[in-house]
Formats: sequence, C-alpha cells, structure tokens
Amino acid sequence: MSTLTSLFEAGSVAIVGASDNPHKIGGRPVAYMKRLNYQGKLIPINPKADVIQGLPAKRSLLELDTPVDLAVVAVPDTLVEKVIKEGLSVGIKNFVVFASGYAEINQQGLEKQRQLQALFDGTQARLLGPNCLGFINTETQLVASFTTAMEQHPLKTGGLSFAGHSGALGAYWLDKTIHAEIGVSKWISSGNEANLPLDEIVDYLATDPQTTIISLYIEEIRHPDKFENALLLAKKNNKPVIALKGGKTAAGARATAAHTASNPLKGVGYAAIFKRTGVIEVQSLSEMIDCSQFYAKGLTLFGNKVGIISISGGAGVLLSDQLEANGLSITGFSDELYTTMEPLLPSFSTVQNPVDLTAALVARPEMLRETTQQLVDSTEFDAVVIFMGLMDSVAQQLTDALLKLKSEPSCPVFLIWMGGNKALLTQIAQHGILVFEEIPDLVTLLSNVKP
Amino acid sequence: MSTLTSLFEAGSVAIVGASDNPHKIGGRPVAYMKRLNYQGKLIPINPKADVIQGLPAKRSLLELDTPVDLAVVAVPDTLVEKVIKEGLSVGIKNFVVFASGYAEINQQGLEKQRQLQALFDGTQARLLGPNCLGFINTETQLVASFTTAMEQHPLKTGGLSFAGHSGALGAYWLDKTIHAEIGVSKWISSGNEANLPLDEIVDYLATDPQTTIISLYIEEIRHPDKFENALLLAKKNNKPVIALKGGKTAAGARATAAHTASNPLKGVGYAAIFKRTGVIEVQSLSEMIDCSQFYAKGLTLFGNKVGIISISGGAGVLLSDQLEANGLSITGFSDELYTTMEPLLPSFSTVQNPVDLTAALVARPEMLRETTQQLVDSTEFDAVVIFMGLMDSVAQQLTDALLKLKSEPSCPVFLIWMGGNKALLTQIAQHGILVFEEIPDLVTLLSNVKP
Repeated sequence: MSTLTSLFEAGSVAIVGASDNPHKIGGRPVAYMKRLNYQGKLIPINPKADVIQGLPAKRSLLELDTPVDLAVVAVPDTLVEKVIKEGLSVGIKNFVVFASGYAEINQQGLEKQRQLQALFDGTQARLLGPNCLGFINTETQLVASFTTAMEQHPLKTGGLSFAGHSGALGAYWLDKTIHAEIGVSKWISSGNEANLPLDEIVDYLATDPQTTIISLYIEEIRHPDKFENALLLAKKNNKPVIALKGGKTAAGARATAAHTASNPLKGVGYAAIFKRTGVIEVQSLSEMIDCSQFYAKGLTLFGNKVGIISISGGAGVLLSDQLEANGLSITGFSDELYTTMEPLLPSFSTVQNPVDLTAALVARPEMLRETTQQLVDSTEFDAVVIFMGLMDSVAQQLTDALLKLKSEPSCPVFLIWMGGNKALLTQIAQHGILVFEEIPDLVTLLSNVKP
Repeated sequence: MSTLTSLFEAGSVAIVGASDNPHKIGGRPVAYMKRLNYQGKLIPINPKADVIQGLPAKRSLLELDTPVDLAVVAVPDTLVEKVIKEGLSVGIKNFVVFASGYAEINQQGLEKQRQLQALFDGTQARLLGPNCLGFINTETQLVASFTTAMEQHPLKTGGLSFAGHSGALGAYWLDKTIHAEIGVSKWISSGNEANLPLDEIVDYLATDPQTTIISLYIEEIRHPDKFENALLLAKKNNKPVIALKGGKTAAGARATAAHTASNPLKGVGYAAIFKRTGVIEVQSLSEMIDCSQFYAKGLTLFGNKVGIISISGGAGVLLSDQLEANGLSITGFSDELYTTMEPLLPSFSTVQNPVDLTAALVARPEMLRETTQQLVDSTEFDAVVIFMGLMDSVAQQLTDALLKLKSEPSCPVFLIWMGGNKALLTQIAQHGILVFEEIPDLVTLLSNVKP
C-alpha cells in the first residue's frame, strides 16, 4: 500500500483556520464537506471560536483529543510554520498547505519554503503544497480544497483521477467533468511540491484501486526516473494516462518559473518518456476530457479502419482528409458489404466509404440506423463516424434511429452533429455514442486513442 | 461590371416547380422570399396552379409576359432540360439548377451533364449547378436556395460572403454566422459547375462592392490560373480570403469524386496558390467563423507581440507555449511598463508577461480592467489576451470591468473564459472583444491573422 493512502484517504480531518464564512478559504472546505456529507470525522480549528458552521471546533491542533489523519492548513503564510510544528508535535502525519508566497515569488520565498520543508526532515509525515488548491477524494467526499469549482455542484463518483501543477486548471477540469457527467475518483493539486512531488502522486494513482484513468497537468517533474516508473506501473495496470504539458517553450518556461517555481526545460525528455510509457499528450483540457470520456465509457479502438456515414458530401470529404492525415484509414467496402449497402441507399448516391446519405435522409430518417448498423455489423471497421448537421425537422426521428442502434464493443460509434439540438444530443450520448460539435475534435480524439 | 451581376443581383425571379408546400424543395425559395420580403419580382411557375403560396403563378416559363432575370429550376432531373430550353427560348439569361444525378453519380450522369452544358453553347446565359443548393443575396433578400438553414432565421446583412462546393457545409456556415451575428452579403453553392465554376464566382466577389471578406469551401478548381488571378484581385481590394480545402488526401479525393465529380489531386498546387495570394487556409468551419469574426469586427494584427493577463498561472503557461509555438511572441515588459504594473498587482505576484492575477482578483475585480488597460495603452503589444475561468461569484463585476475597457485599434483584446456565463460573454463580445472557450481556438486564430 502506498504511504500516501493515509493522506488521500484520510478518515479524520482538521481544518486549521476554519471560518464561519463558507466563502472564505478556511470556510470552503468545511462548507463543502458538510454539504457533501463527508464520511469521516471533521474538526474545525479556530483560535477564537468553539463552533464553526455548526460544528464543534478546537482552538488549536494542540487541543485535539486524538491526532487526526490530516490537517488542512488554511492560514496565512506567516502562520503556516507554527501550525505545522504543532501538528507534528501531536503526531499528525499529513498536511495540506494552501498558502502561496514561497519559491514561486522570489529568493526569500524559496528560503521560507526550505524552512517549511526542513520541518519534515527525519519524519514520515507528508505535506501537499504549499501554493496548492489541495485535493478531493470522492469516495468519502473528502474535500481538502477551497476550489470554487465545488461551489454549486456535486461530484459524480467514478474512475477518473486528476493530478497536476495548476489548481486553477484542475478546477476547470473539475467543472468540465461535472458538465460531461464523468465520474471522478481523486483530484490533486500539487503546487510547489516542497515535500510531495507529482511522480509520487502518479505512483499512488497507478495502484489506487478506485482510479482507472489518470489525467495530468505537468510543469516540471522533480524525479523523471520515478515518474517514468510510475507511468509504467499505470500502463501495467491498464490505466490510460492523459497528459497536458506546460512549459515546452522558452516563453512557457518563464511563465512556469513564476507559477510553481519550476524549470520545465531542464533537460528532461518528456516526449520520449510519454512515448515509452504510452502517455497520450493533449493540447487542451477539452481534448483531455474527450479522451477521458472515451475511456470512461469503456471504449477501445482496436484498429485504424474508420467507416463514415454523412449527410453532407463535403463533410465526408473533410473527415476522410483529416482522419487519413492523422493515421486513420478510410477503407473501401468488401463486395459483400457493397451488396448489402446498395439497396439501403438512394439510387443517385455512390455506394462507397464515406457513405453520402444526401438530403434523401429527410424523407427516410430510418436510413441512418440501417446504414450505420450495417457498417457496425460488417466487422470491416474499427469505428464508425456519423456526420449530421442541422436537420431540425427530422432531428427527433434521427435521434430515435440512433437510439435503436445496437453497438458492438469492437466498433464504437461517434457522432458529429453540427448545430444539433442539445437535449437530443444528451440522449444520444447516454446511449453510449460520443458526440462532437466539430470535425477536428473527433479527428483529434481518434488520433489520440488509435492503437 | 462582372457578367455575373445579373445572376447574383437578379431583380426578378421565376421559381420553376414552385410548390404550395413551404417545406418542399420547390416551396422553400418561395416561402423564404415571401417571409423575408424579397425586394424584386417573384413569379412561381407550376403547370397545375394559378396561385402558389398566395402569389399569382404561371403554368410555364413560356407564359411569362416579360423574361425574368433568373429562373430557379426546382424540378426533378428528368424535367430540367425541357425547362432550360423553354427559359432560353424566352430570353432568360440566368438559371439555377438544384437537381442531382449528374456527373457526381456515373458515366451516364456525366453524359446528361454534358447535354445540359451544351444547351448554353453559343449563348451568354449562365447556369449555377446542377447538384447545388443555389445562392442567397441578403441585400435584396433574394433566396434562390432551398437550404434548411433559412427555415427559422433571418440573415443579418453585412460584408461576409461564402462560395463553395458543398451546399450542406454552406448551410452549416450560414447557421454559424447567424449564431455569431455576423452580417452576410452573398452565399453561393456552386455544385457540379457545369457552366459556372468557383474561379469565376471568386472573381465576382473580389469586385462586388458589398463583399468585404470571402470564405470558400473548395474541392477542385477548374481553372487554377483564373482562380489565382481572382484571389490576387481580392487581395488588391483588401478582402481577406479564408479557405477550407477538401480532397487533400487519397481518401478525401475519392470522396470528392462521388460528391461533386471533381478530382482535387490533379496536380494543382493549392498550398502554393494560397501562399502567393495570402489566402488563410483553415481546418474547420468553426475556425473559418472565428477568422471571419475577427475581420468583420474590423480588427487587425499589426505585429506578433502578445501580452497575456491570466487568472491561472497554468493557463498563462499553456498560452505562452502555444502562442510561441505558432509564431507569436510573448515579449517582456519595458522598465517603464514594469513600474506602472507593479503597484496594480498583488504583492506575491511576479510582475511579468504573462501576468498572473491570482485568486486576489476575487477581492478586487477592477484589477482586471486596470492591468489590461495598461498593457493596451503601453503600445508594447499588438494584442492582449485575457484568460478567465469560472469565477461565478464575481463574474458580473469582471464583465463590468471589461466593458469599461478603452480599446485601441493597434491592440485588439481577446478573452478566453473557460466555463463562463453565456449571457455575460455575449455582452463582452458586443463590446468588441472576441470571446473563446478554449486556448487552442484563440491560438489558431492569432496564428491565422498574424502579419
């Protein structure tokens, strides 16, 4: 078992600097865990109050009857060292520090961070941060974080975990998983990594039984060898790893220095590590979420052969071009499939891949299901991509046709519907079909997940 | 004056095959022009009716009292030749043919297309199509098209024109311009180009006084030399040309053959033509619309120096990386600008480009306007990019701050707001700031429009 289990799966938490105001940094974790009904023991710590947000509070960590698994330190940077010393003195093994003003600002801050770090020398205690947004574990609804992404929303429990060097990007990631209705397991913001670097966190996630997919935002990796081993462990455990890498150019590296005091150009070959360990590198959070959706739905692309069904000849052309340019293959029909498809299509339509359904689809919406089902059942393709656009007058019938589609694990179906009706698209997505608004988004996903 | 003026600016139109049913192909153009109050003369033609959708109808083109400028031929392919002959016999100079079943399906169709083409030999008459969706001219609300994109919406009049080989992609383009509230001038679907190829249409748009920006979807260009001359004419007239090119791979070319009977790989160097003529090549309709928005708002990028203001350090890193990798430059501050910026920022924030506003922005939303205005006024940047995410609690104040921003033509301002409030973003866009949801979309735009 990873030594980080007692941190990320803490059964009791003290919030130091807990506030009665649920919008303050020290009030948010308390408010979130109260609302979400955290399954462990929650103790607010405030030097001036006996009750915080309705919960009995202690004046300091020194007054705890028994040590907690985790102390969330939500006090200003000037008070952090004192709180950590008190926590260590009563035997607390895990700390999260939110405060910034350390190595990311200047030499003086770096010195302050070194002092903080030194408190942990010779102990087995661990510190997440400083300059971080903390972490979330959805299994027990443990929210050791003040991220505003948790303000209004619940979190769906699932297998997708995130760890990274940007709390804010993590917050947007959380918001996107909520809107995409993807279940989340752990969410971890590592900040300045005075004591606990991302490589160790990835190692923890690689063996965490609840985590099935790992998403990362990376600036600088402190121990590239450990990082690579952790990624190999994830690979061995069949957990896809999806990474967004920051600080790849001189301009980006200057920005990371100010952000998390990191130096991402320090000679580590990230591209090579990603290649050796099968990490999928993405360019944006949206791309990361698309990839996560694919794996969260349990989909697999076993080969690169794509069948295309399109209402628009032009869209079929663009899809063919962009898929082929990205390593997918738009293979022709076997004679047998040609013979099966011909009677299903309008007389003036060419029977080939991509299939152009033409405006004849308006008169016979069921043609969408018939032709798609044939391609899926043919076993000649590893994926089928459908392109639709507008079609308001028959959108309900087309949706009904897609909902009747019988899927095959060997051939996932994807839908691009330009200008489509949001409510209908939600129904279609719930039927297991991944839905996109634009061609390049789908092309990028297939390129990312192809074998 | 282009010989195509009497086609695209027709003052009188006959709809042959006009239907009383406003949802049929022959009913749509009549319904659209009635609803939009077409400023010319509209005559439905139907062999069995005296009144169509409330308008007096003729039984055939032969019964017209005086020839019309344009005959829209909305009859099945088997009747097209007869209608064209009748039209030519009464002196009609312009035809649009919707029917498909010509060169795009087989040898027999090609033969049928050649016969259609031959009807125009030795005449000055012109034919748009067959196998096309027709055209729209918003100046007079002339809708010689059955595109369903016109079903529910009005069209805003403006300077953006579209021409291309896919009616459906054109329809999605129309839908997107309507949602983006960009004003449109001409919209032209050229189909199989039996008589009127895209190169001539581009030549018309290059001199059309109403058209200020030209968007194209291109499969095969019939006369590359004429095309290049038309593009050079557009360039000379300061009209940006934005092109989406289909049929760039073997798979794409197979698809165009079935789509518009074209052979896009026939040795024409499109990339070289685009480079010589300054055409912006895009990968999707969304990218095309982003580019069009930029020009439609009268914006210009005079250099490649970008200033960044971000609520998230990580997002600042990603923006720096991706902008620099795409030929933009994230230049540092002059001493003077450093001195001006320092007091505006939180004490723990590094004063540099990208500016990291940090969570301190929540307490002081006005900081967004103050810092952005300084970068704009400094004359040290050719563009300023703002990154925001979530921030629901102060979204209104941040919006108010942005609405107070004083813009400078030399330094357009762009906003990425991940998970932002749609209504507020609309207000911000109306203030002249281009708004995006994701980093790569903005990066692609700046890369497309950089000098």
